[in-house]
Amino acid sequence: MFNFNKDNFLKVTNGALGLRGQIEDIVETLNERGYKNLFLIGSGGSIAIMYPFEYIIKTTSTLPVFAEIAAEFVLYNHKQFGPDSLVILSSLSGTTKETVKAAEFCKEKGATTIGLVGELGTPLADLSDYTLVNYSENDTASESIYLQLYLLIFKLLQVRGEFSEYTEFADELERMPSVLLDVKEATESQASQFAKLNKDEDYHMLVGSGSVWGETYSYAMCVLEEMQWIRTKAIHAAEFFHGTLELVEKDTSMILMKGEDESRPLMERVERFALKVTDKLSIFDTKQYELKGISEKYRKYLSPIIIASLFERVSTHLEKERNHPLSTRRYYRVVEY
Amino acid sequence: MFNFNKDNFLKVTNGALGLRGQIEDIVETLNERGYKNLFLIGSGGSIAIMYPFEYIIKTTSTLPVFAEIAAEFVLYNHKQFGPDSLVILSSLSGTTKETVKAAEFCKEKGATTIGLVGELGTPLADLSDYTLVNYSENDTASESIYLQLYLLIFKLLQVRGEFSEYTEFADELERMPSVLLDVKEATESQASQFAKLNKDEDYHMLVGSGSVWGETYSYAMCVLEEMQWIRTKAIHAAEFFHGTLELVEKDTSMILMKGEDESRPLMERVERFALKVTDKLSIFDTKQYELKGISEKYRKYLSPIIIASLFERVSTHLEKERNHPLSTRRYYRVVEY
Repeated sequence: MFNFNKDNFLKVTNGALGLRGQIEDIVETLNERGYKNLFLIGSGGSIAIMYPFEYIIKTTSTLPVFAEIAAEFVLYNHKQFGPDSLVILSSLSGTTKETVKAAEFCKEKGATTIGLVGELGTPLADLSDYTLVNYSENDTASESIYLQLYLLIFKLLQVRGEFSEYTEFADELERMPSVLLDVKEATESQASQFAKLNKDEDYHMLVGSGSVWGETYSYAMCVLEEMQWIRTKAIHAAEFFHGTLELVEKDTSMILMKGEDESRPLMERVERFALKVTDKLSIFDTKQYELKGISEKYRKYLSPIIIASLFERVSTHLEKERNHPLSTRRYYRVVEY
Repeated sequence: MFNFNKDNFLKVTNGALGLRGQIEDIVETLNERGYKNLFLIGSGGSIAIMYPFEYIIKTTSTLPVFAEIAAEFVLYNHKQFGPDSLVILSSLSGTTKETVKAAEFCKEKGATTIGLVGELGTPLADLSDYTLVNYSENDTASESIYLQLYLLIFKLLQVRGEFSEYTEFADELERMPSVLLDVKEATESQASQFAKLNKDEDYHMLVGSGSVWGETYSYAMCVLEEMQWIRTKAIHAAEFFHGTLELVEKDTSMILMKGEDESRPLMERVERFALKVTDKLSIFDTKQYELKGISEKYRKYLSPIIIASLFERVSTHLEKERNHPLSTRRYYRVVEY
């Protein structure tokens, strides 16, 4: 695969899975102490990665869950939030300003925090009551965080009596490093072709739904906009027909991210429309991958990590074809604002 | 004011306020019967108009509240939803497919529904346990629904003991028809100038926050995209610095919708950045209006209706300057999909 370090990928993903014992211990401890509700807090990509878990919890658990944007959360008095709240935050660098501020805010209010970071000794790591550490860089950060969150969230559900299959599910997760490598391999040529075809495209409309919506939102904002300076519209499939559809013309690029949960029919409806209207339709569908060793019943939960992992291939090829490094910024951490 | 029917506006807004007695009776009845949580359900503009109330409830009440997109909601099993849930839905025509389906779904599950419609004898009106009817057309629909929701939601909070000022607030709402007329008058020249300057603009970035975010989202999608076929990006001020900022250049049109709640500092930060970078910055700020007869302490709640009402002026001038009727559709209710 182009510009891909397999050893590093396996090290990071296995590193995340290696936290399983620690995660299970944390959850057991928290369960004994009790908590009232769960807050998932982050900014940009790190709140977007929480959305699938908010979705999964809403649809499988009675645990009240709230995904909140860090910078807004600290400004208001969220009435469900308090000392009995459990909070999960993540920041690869451990230094994201808004997330660190949110962790301080949670500490002041007496809530219990779990911080997912890439390094110890960083502000988020120091502030969190429980810290999960797994080093990764930008190209493997999604998989690292996803795997930790799958273990953490589904273990939380298990001890609540809402996901008895946890042990089997967690065992199957051990196969994800190799499953994801297969997914990336299988996507390589589609990704390369997409990048070649779209290298001069100045606008993409991205559509997603259900547990995949977070990836749709963040791929548009954190990759295409931030790292490639391409204009985007990310729109939820359930909302597409309430306005955004009117923009679609024969030459409008549409990118569909299809997952396998209950919301799939919404994506199929958008697809039927798009097939009639535009010649520039790109579909990335988790269903086209085998996911060796993963039970059918767990596939729907894994759609977002599959999408995230295969789109890393798309990004890498876009970077090459557009001759625009993913790391170049005009403003972020370049100018003061 | 250009292309504006004052009599009709007063008729619609006073019609909405005229439902106060009925709304208060409904809330008293519901309170006696009891309910566990509140679901706000809609699609496009009619879910966006619920977001401010989700925000307001989250920050002032312990009532669990969930804003849900209709088409997605009916596909999954939301574990907080059940016979003890109270549901508010709105559809001007009373026929919006997804909303009607959601109302049917709620009925099957035994939840209590309140439907806000423009006409009796429509599917949503027939399906709802309680129906609020106020005729309006597209250009006054926002104000009509907002006023009803202010009465309904704040009355709900009052009877829960969380908003003792309800009577004063509701009395002040009676002044909103004239307040909003003043706001529109005061915006007329800015709206006209904006439309002239931007008539050939093919992309706008819209930024909002807090209780105004719903308007930001829906103005981008339901007016600029749907009614004017202009590309947009709507981005929350708390998320702007996590990707979208990289797109801004000297000639990028940015539209800032500033309200007066706790999240205002987030908008001020975006504004400072935008002032440095782009020459095409348009700021619409509720703070610039007097709102005669409205107490300072209620202004933050009213930011979204102020923004909605003044942007009707922007739309009307865009329609003229761009010679593109707001009612023209390529696809919606034109082709089958």
